[in-house]
Amino acid sequence: MLNETIQLGLAGFGTVGSGLAKIIQTNQEWIARRLGKNLAIKTVLVRDLDKPRPVTLPPRTRFTTSPDELFQDPDIDLVVELAGGIEFPRHLITQSLLAGKSVVTANKHLLAEHGPELFALAAEKGLGLYYEASVAGGIPIVQTLKESLAGNRIRRLTGILNGTANYIMTEMTAKGLDFATALSQAQELGYAEADPELDIEGMDAAHKLCVLIRLAHGEDYPLADLPVQGISAVDPFDIRMAGEFGYCIKLLAQVKERSGHLQAGVFPALVAKDHILAKVDGPFNSILLEGNAVGPIMLYGQGAGDLPTGSAVLADIMALSREGCPPNNTGFPGTSLPRADILPPELTVSRHYFRFTVKDRPGVLSSLSGIMGERNISIAQVVQKRDEIREGVPVVFLTHSAPMKDASRALAEIDAAGFTIAPTVHYQIL
Amino acid sequence: MLNETIQLGLAGFGTVGSGLAKIIQTNQEWIARRLGKNLAIKTVLVRDLDKPRPVTLPPRTRFTTSPDELFQDPDIDLVVELAGGIEFPRHLITQSLLAGKSVVTANKHLLAEHGPELFALAAEKGLGLYYEASVAGGIPIVQTLKESLAGNRIRRLTGILNGTANYIMTEMTAKGLDFATALSQAQELGYAEADPELDIEGMDAAHKLCVLIRLAHGEDYPLADLPVQGISAVDPFDIRMAGEFGYCIKLLAQVKERSGHLQAGVFPALVAKDHILAKVDGPFNSILLEGNAVGPIMLYGQGAGDLPTGSAVLADIMALSREGCPPNNTGFPGTSLPRADILPPELTVSRHYFRFTVKDRPGVLSSLSGIMGERNISIAQVVQKRDEIREGVPVVFLTHSAPMKDASRALAEIDAAGFTIAPTVHYQIL
Repeated sequence: MLNETIQLGLAGFGTVGSGLAKIIQTNQEWIARRLGKNLAIKTVLVRDLDKPRPVTLPPRTRFTTSPDELFQDPDIDLVVELAGGIEFPRHLITQSLLAGKSVVTANKHLLAEHGPELFALAAEKGLGLYYEASVAGGIPIVQTLKESLAGNRIRRLTGILNGTANYIMTEMTAKGLDFATALSQAQELGYAEADPELDIEGMDAAHKLCVLIRLAHGEDYPLADLPVQGISAVDPFDIRMAGEFGYCIKLLAQVKERSGHLQAGVFPALVAKDHILAKVDGPFNSILLEGNAVGPIMLYGQGAGDLPTGSAVLADIMALSREGCPPNNTGFPGTSLPRADILPPELTVSRHYFRFTVKDRPGVLSSLSGIMGERNISIAQVVQKRDEIREGVPVVFLTHSAPMKDASRALAEIDAAGFTIAPTVHYQIL
Repeated sequence: MLNETIQLGLAGFGTVGSGLAKIIQTNQEWIARRLGKNLAIKTVLVRDLDKPRPVTLPPRTRFTTSPDELFQDPDIDLVVELAGGIEFPRHLITQSLLAGKSVVTANKHLLAEHGPELFALAAEKGLGLYYEASVAGGIPIVQTLKESLAGNRIRRLTGILNGTANYIMTEMTAKGLDFATALSQAQELGYAEADPELDIEGMDAAHKLCVLIRLAHGEDYPLADLPVQGISAVDPFDIRMAGEFGYCIKLLAQVKERSGHLQAGVFPALVAKDHILAKVDGPFNSILLEGNAVGPIMLYGQGAGDLPTGSAVLADIMALSREGCPPNNTGFPGTSLPRADILPPELTVSRHYFRFTVKDRPGVLSSLSGIMGERNISIAQVVQKRDEIREGVPVVFLTHSAPMKDASRALAEIDAAGFTIAPTVHYQIL
């Protein structure tokens, strides 16, 4: 049985690629025992053949700069795309599927933007296109949604899907740092990339959310329609205020289902300190979801890193290497998924956190609360505090549940009335 | 495509069976969309045809008291065993497999005791024997170990696997109740059965641990060799003392791997209050595990109940209903697994909690710590407190890491020296 070897063609030998190679080397015998077959990396596609690599592969492994050597090689059973980017991996995956090879990828950006076309091609060819590593590193959320919770309607899914952003928010909260300082510390420690924009502005979490929505709801939610707000504008003062009310601030990715419509977004939000997601600190990721049968389920683990992400890539490779298993790519049969029926963000109902910065003069609090009342926004808690370093008086309102459109209208009216002397800060409360 | 219907034969129509039926009814269209096939319960095997049932099934569903009508019916594609017990389900599963039908079961007791024989038969017949619902209700731990983490060596797995015991420990901790009061409250609320022994004495968790060890390590760990200690002897005084040191007490099921040997057991242990497992309260279950690639991963959810457990049964039914998928029952190819290489419990190394009840006289503390020192047990914290309601003085030691055999020897010597006037309480610290 162990005479059979699954030959892999690996595109990209960065963090995840070398992590995968390390695991395959370290756990070689174990994998063979689990699978009844050996795994071997036959060819590695890299940009630069001279760059030193952190993992030494066996001498029989071929390094190449030509993608054709992956998909045109009849000996390669599976193509593993860990190159990153959009146009190149799109081409590589397409060519590999056309050449009759199943593909494993960790590329959430590509799947969020071009998933429908790639899944349609894989379905047409009857081949696998697996992507456990694309969301939340080693946490098996793709498999869980695709198989384990397949019989559930997922009512709500809330994720901490970006470890960089969560690390920065955790440090800002624990040490009172401002965003810029926390970001540069994260960069020094390797938790944030030199160009951190995708992570801190929420787009990376948005890509992952699109992948999860497809799995949970069987619908394509266009990335362009997803409201996305990052953490670069989060002020340590609001973290402190939230803390006084018993909350922390986290970057969340969320989708809720209401009578068949989906409401989704990526945004910083207040999370009660005794909520289970509040315990997810540093570079960890977590997904909390609510199925109509299973109830609440949470998965927690490392959302990035060479070995955790490599572990997820390896799970896909092993699944596709099992004999004769027809692939289950999207979790739904057929070649394409319908487009999501999107509920506009204005209809989101949640509790709200507002911080107004007002002139210090009588009657302002009463006027603010008056306008909120006219818009049917019921106030749960108020704190007015002097902030030493800023002009004006911050007034913080925590409201009861209210639709986003009423909250926005109240905000607009308050700004128009000229009470505020700085932009109002507004977060949802989970 | 939807003309095809998977016909189920269901044995048992109690909590889980009726939960499964409810989910199949409620999510019928969704399941058909996910699967490309319909699911229908053709026949339900019950003991009593006159007993009223909480779920009304379609009139075409046949109720029977004869097991033959499940496995001898050529129209039945899959047998779902939710009857409980040992000998009857063993017979039913064996006959179903012999008749060429794959089986889904939630029966951890049966799998712990007779797993090897049943899995061997399923492998021989090339049929599925799936059991996601046997451990931790709706939490997809079976699937996660079998597939998602298959490329990992699992170094350590720690679970809160019994919701009844966890509910009782949570109530004892929160309200200072004694065990008997907490148990009878749990019974009133339906969290504990009339005969709670399997739950509170740790055997239910032990059954589940045997199932998880097989999945994580590919080895059969005989139930009879598993050290099992329940919670019925836990004293609220120790919960309070543990609390003062920053710990709670939880019933844990644990397996650790050391150079190929396994060390496993079910026991109450002190868990630091800021440890992620300390947040698992009430009837919830959780599994924390450490893979050599993925690092730490935690799964959390409802460990029991009609719908959560039904959700897990349904996942297995759907997996086995997918076209042409060869089953992956144990997570390892072949017909049998080797017996685990077991490290004796005496070699377990952990920190320890000891409560000695001593006579109130000079020199006792020094003698106690002297004996500990001779056995190389290094003391981290000591508290001596008067307990109003008991004779003698309780002295609590928290130690640094020490092998169980040294701890046991020190205990025996202390007891032999006649310092203690009541049995010494001893827990591991996680």
